[in-house]
Amino acid sequence: SSYFKIAVLPGDGIGPEVVGESIKVLDAVAEVFQCQFKFSYGLMGAEAIFKTGDPLPEETLRICKDSDAVLFGAIGDPVFDNNPEAKVRPEQGLLKLRKELGLYANIRPLKTYASLIDKSPLKREIIEGTDIQIFRELVSGIYFGEKFTDPDGKYAYDVCKYSTEEIIPIAHMAFKEAQKRRKKLTLIDKANVLDTSRLWRKTCQKIAPQYPDVQLDYIFVDNAAMQLVLNPKQFDVILTENMFGDIISDEASVIGGSIGLLPSASIGEENALFEPIHGSYPQAKGKGIANPVASILSTAMMLDYLELPEAADKLRRAVEHAIENRYVTVDLNSEQHYSTSEVGSFIADYI
Amino acid sequence: SSYFKIAVLPGDGIGPEVVGESIKVLDAVAEVFQCQFKFSYGLMGAEAIFKTGDPLPEETLRICKDSDAVLFGAIGDPVFDNNPEAKVRPEQGLLKLRKELGLYANIRPLKTYASLIDKSPLKREIIEGTDIQIFRELVSGIYFGEKFTDPDGKYAYDVCKYSTEEIIPIAHMAFKEAQKRRKKLTLIDKANVLDTSRLWRKTCQKIAPQYPDVQLDYIFVDNAAMQLVLNPKQFDVILTENMFGDIISDEASVIGGSIGLLPSASIGEENALFEPIHGSYPQAKGKGIANPVASILSTAMMLDYLELPEAADKLRRAVEHAIENRYVTVDLNSEQHYSTSEVGSFIADYI
Ligand SMILES: CC(C)[C@H](C(=O)O)[C@@H](O)C(=O)O
Ligand SMILES: CC(C)[C@H](C(=O)O)[C@@H](O)C(=O)O
Repeated sequence: SSYFKIAVLPGDGIGPEVVGESIKVLDAVAEVFQCQFKFSYGLMGAEAIFKTGDPLPEETLRICKDSDAVLFGAIGDPVFDNNPEAKVRPEQGLLKLRKELGLYANIRPLKTYASLIDKSPLKREIIEGTDIQIFRELVSGIYFGEKFTDPDGKYAYDVCKYSTEEIIPIAHMAFKEAQKRRKKLTLIDKANVLDTSRLWRKTCQKIAPQYPDVQLDYIFVDNAAMQLVLNPKQFDVILTENMFGDIISDEASVIGGSIGLLPSASIGEENALFEPIHGSYPQAKGKGIANPVASILSTAMMLDYLELPEAADKLRRAVEHAIENRYVTVDLNSEQHYSTSEVGSFIADYI
Repeated sequence: SSYFKIAVLPGDGIGPEVVGESIKVLDAVAEVFQCQFKFSYGLMGAEAIFKTGDPLPEETLRICKDSDAVLFGAIGDPVFDNNPEAKVRPEQGLLKLRKELGLYANIRPLKTYASLIDKSPLKREIIEGTDIQIFRELVSGIYFGEKFTDPDGKYAYDVCKYSTEEIIPIAHMAFKEAQKRRKKLTLIDKANVLDTSRLWRKTCQKIAPQYPDVQLDYIFVDNAAMQLVLNPKQFDVILTENMFGDIISDEASVIGGSIGLLPSASIGEENALFEPIHGSYPQAKGKGIANPVASILSTAMMLDYLELPEAADKLRRAVEHAIENRYVTVDLNSEQHYSTSEVGSFIADYI
């Protein structure tokens, strides 16, 4: 049916403001596309620690597990960033949520907008036309391997572990996406040093014959970090493990000059979570200046996931319409700009 | 005395050509500055595998251990890169050499050259004036931790381990360098996720009071990957662990637009190795087009290490003189250019 249960986790900093605009836009979508969204709100992150002592309260996890999809704002608060000794941290909530919901594939599309290209730190001729889709493994590797610090604080270790079962599903997902695009898949690893990287390589090599139309390339992570800046257009679909994906996808997110516009999806077998790439941006909290577009485009990815492709396309067109008409927040135009809520309303009205 | 035993490992690809120019320049230095260099050559890398089956033959290791410093070209060959199953690989030789010589600190200075700034993929206003010194820990962490692949190929792991003893020496080195510069030290880590990163943070925090004039900052590695592209000028001295250093220092090396000019030093208690940052660049091998400047500037770092600062300065001035007079290889000027050997001779003659 066209009835969807959406868990809403506004989180910290500008999270609540941008997620609020996503809700506004979803209300418009519901009206036009004859569907219903039931929103259930949950506490998460620093907000949740302040109120309950737990960055991911049981109640929030229950709401998420019971939902068709999760809309997420941002987490993080300077109170914790400046205190590495804090035992309870907002990030733990996000990591636990990813693991509990089994969100193994973090997907980040990176596109450049013609009208914004001059905001890029890279030269126009280098960045223009870049169109990359990154698949980052999200629930294994060194993030979730065994960790240990000896009681005397003399040494510590973190284990990066991968099994073929953890690699195969996201590899298939990435191959399938490459088939729909320019048919090029690049695995980023450090196979000249790490056993886990060699496992990734072999596993992808074994899968490759099932996608004969896709060209599978390998690149070492250090070289990838260079190539993204030197010639980002060479990439189509990128696949990588959790830690490398964290670094490479953040590097990639700034080369287009519009991190305030970039959405992400974290997909599992049973559920999925959608969040803007930008963080909680505490300095902007409550000022009405945050750019709601990344959250709104994450909502478009959610509509695709919920199999409402027409609504998703309409939403993306509405965003393009706003950007082309310079109906944007201050980060994109310092001379003439609109508030978070004005931009959200403009997009909702277009729908 | 002014007599130095230099181990010379030309290695693969363009390694022999660029190292040859360093030798030429050292001969000029010997004459002008009244010192003597005795060069002992060793096999290393793919070259060594082809000839002896071993990427780091015992004889080479002996020559290095018996030297005052090591001049190194490059390693790597497409034969191995395209075969992840190869049991013996050139990289193993380099990693073993680092470990055996205890080269715990890899140092990479990054400067921009006014006359070359337009070669950068970044916009002039972003990159101009960037001056960074990176300290990467080189003989521990996930590179040298326990590795395992189960015989059925179902899973694998790599352990990232650090002890405070492995962190303290390079931390002091980085603090001291910051004192000589703009007095800002940035530790790059992932302390919101990794126990080893938290150990790095605590260890640096403990050392910091000994350097009250240095400001110690922390940044997560994903954010660092963004900030290097958005605003590289914010960094002065960077300190980081082995794997993050591999990625971040390579990313940093391309933002200036002149990777063919960048030197590096790998320093230990008893010995040190100097090598250009660019790799073996097999496509250019034997063509006489490789840029010898990175190798020559690495040689300048070696002269500093051997406590010949005047010779080192003279060498750096000679390089600047060549660049200012556009006496450069094809990578820096496609219209009028000189061969590897012509550029080397020009620099040697100036000395
Ligand atoms: C907050 C942090 C734990 C997280 C991560 O490293 O995965 C973030 O950087 C991200 O990429 O979503
Ligand atoms: C060749 C490789 C093992 C090496 C490394 O990863 O350390 C190289 O990338 C470097 O940075 O010197």
